[in-house]
Amino acid sequence: MSVTHPQGFTAAGVTAGLKASGTKDLALVVNEGPRSAAAVVFTSNRAKANPIIWSQQVIADGIASAVLLNSGGANCYTGAQGFQTTHATAERTAELLDANAGDILVCSTGLIGEQLDRPLMIAGIESAVASLSTDGGLDAATAIMTTDTHPKQAIVERDGWSLGGMAKGAGMLAPGLATMLVVITTDADLPSTSLDAALRASTRVTFDRLDSDGCMSTNDQVTLLASGASGITPELDDFTSALTELCTSLASQLQEDAEGAAHDITIEVVGALTEDDGVEVGRAVARNNLFKAAVFGQDPNWGRVLAAVGTTAAAFDPYDIDVTMNGIRVAHKGEPDQSRDLVDMTGRALHLLIDLHAGDATATIWTNDLTHDYVHENSAYSS
Amino acid sequence: MSVTHPQGFTAAGVTAGLKASGTKDLALVVNEGPRSAAAVVFTSNRAKANPIIWSQQVIADGIASAVLLNSGGANCYTGAQGFQTTHATAERTAELLDANAGDILVCSTGLIGEQLDRPLMIAGIESAVASLSTDGGLDAATAIMTTDTHPKQAIVERDGWSLGGMAKGAGMLAPGLATMLVVITTDADLPSTSLDAALRASTRVTFDRLDSDGCMSTNDQVTLLASGASGITPELDDFTSALTELCTSLASQLQEDAEGAAHDITIEVVGALTEDDGVEVGRAVARNNLFKAAVFGQDPNWGRVLAAVGTTAAAFDPYDIDVTMNGIRVAHKGEPDQSRDLVDMTGRALHLLIDLHAGDATATIWTNDLTHDYVHENSAYSS
Repeated sequence: MSVTHPQGFTAAGVTAGLKASGTKDLALVVNEGPRSAAAVVFTSNRAKANPIIWSQQVIADGIASAVLLNSGGANCYTGAQGFQTTHATAERTAELLDANAGDILVCSTGLIGEQLDRPLMIAGIESAVASLSTDGGLDAATAIMTTDTHPKQAIVERDGWSLGGMAKGAGMLAPGLATMLVVITTDADLPSTSLDAALRASTRVTFDRLDSDGCMSTNDQVTLLASGASGITPELDDFTSALTELCTSLASQLQEDAEGAAHDITIEVVGALTEDDGVEVGRAVARNNLFKAAVFGQDPNWGRVLAAVGTTAAAFDPYDIDVTMNGIRVAHKGEPDQSRDLVDMTGRALHLLIDLHAGDATATIWTNDLTHDYVHENSAYSS
Repeated sequence: MSVTHPQGFTAAGVTAGLKASGTKDLALVVNEGPRSAAAVVFTSNRAKANPIIWSQQVIADGIASAVLLNSGGANCYTGAQGFQTTHATAERTAELLDANAGDILVCSTGLIGEQLDRPLMIAGIESAVASLSTDGGLDAATAIMTTDTHPKQAIVERDGWSLGGMAKGAGMLAPGLATMLVVITTDADLPSTSLDAALRASTRVTFDRLDSDGCMSTNDQVTLLASGASGITPELDDFTSALTELCTSLASQLQEDAEGAAHDITIEVVGALTEDDGVEVGRAVARNNLFKAAVFGQDPNWGRVLAAVGTTAAAFDPYDIDVTMNGIRVAHKGEPDQSRDLVDMTGRALHLLIDLHAGDATATIWTNDLTHDYVHENSAYSS
């Protein structure tokens, strides 16, 4: 299933030995054709890892034959030696697949500032190519995990064609593609320009709205590969709709597995003058540590919500904002409304509704709470 | 000492009964003259508490006779009833001091969205006025504490005149005046226009550069009162220099007492094209939870520093940045430099030096680490 669900794809996940844990750490997803159209969106962080710099060149022509991914090292801030490692692994992959190195996308994830072991990578690639299969999706999804507790996969079926996807990401989840590696496959027959338009439209309202901890990665990459093996060319709107459904599923899985999180918080901003205003307000609340710690403590501290909203430049009257938490409207027109004691925060899901009373636009941001486990996971070891 | 150190000031701190703990919770600082010039800077949060809205009117003419401050409640998002409480307490204070209510500044701190008990406030004011004294500085500094572990005071002496100050603040420490209440007194004889210019210049490089947890308060207020009792009018540059010295001391005390913090982090950005670039870079790092958690774990994770720098729009080449932690240059020109194992982070102070190699401007931001105690303090109870 997942990336090998659509026709025309094989995948593998193997243990190259990059991770001290000895678990799978190298994945390969190959587009077997007949088409090899592709689109990619990258982190907007200016501090880009070597595989990002490489892959930006690869995708320039809208063609990609395969994606090579590794966990166990980000290959970021590793200088010329690190870039040469990325290049060498793309070359070796291309040789074994009888492809061009310039059509091999590369993704890495792990600690910044450490060199990857090139001989281990090369041997891992040889092993991965040897084990490529149309059942390899789960192995590939497993090999890209870092602090993830389980592999993330999704499929969407349409009439005669389908989408499959895998994702990894549990920390550094913030905009600029929500800090993760994602590979999406489809057997729909679409040119790279259509794939690119659909991918940008879908990620804008899914991964880009996931802001678990406000920290943007150096290695984010969302890759979409199209084999054309179904022989069907869907309408672009239909394709984008299906792709958005798949991305929403993967984004939800990332949120639910965020490092140390005890609550999944959906921040729905309504009554905004513009969608951008809604996003700005939602993100300000999603990044407010005091609010996030209060949610962990099951404290419906709506004052911290309004204090965060007040830092934005969005259009609103600060004294005409309603705040509703899990169905209880706790603040109305700048005054307390229903008792905060009525808000039940014992479940994992918190729905925070903010009505700005300034227009008709809406936006939803997904985030998590700030917990002891988050601090522990991010202080106890390097990642 | 502190606010009663300069000539021409009395103060008091009493227990009005606003705090469940039964500790002092109401403070009064009175300018006994002969002059009553004043300047105030307020939170830039658009969600402003009632005392902020009141005090902005009071200071419009550059004159203030006294500052009334309470802990135990922010009086923010409490509607018309809350504003009337602020007004009534200013009126009662003015009556007892034989002053105009329009010259009484008011500050509140505590939980947002709860009404203050007006009769308790009024009784507390009567008690405070009865106990005003030139030795009342410490009592006043004690009465404004919330989660602070100790009162914060400072004095600066010059030839024939002086400055005194008190501050409270341990959480919601972020720009827009670093979320706190501060009262500064001086017996220098300066008009309110000069006081205002000096105060804005000083806070810009002190309180505004303190960013403990990225959360901006609704109640920030820094008040400067001048009695003129020394009969001396210093040069504005000299006065601003002394004021900046005082504000630096108080800002350092706030940082050292920040909620749950285990490290005081000084982020010094050098080689910036502009000072604004330096501030933007420093603040991005100061707000990166992954970096802050790593500092708590004594992990010199410089990759998280560069990932945070990379999210800014400042002028720099991402692969020509040096990072030095407590004297060890761990990254140089986009590659690892000295071993991260050499960085000693066992002490409370961490000096992080970021050289952008883009110009000659510098800026320093002060922050704290992200700890279990921070999560505990901000999740275990409402504040």
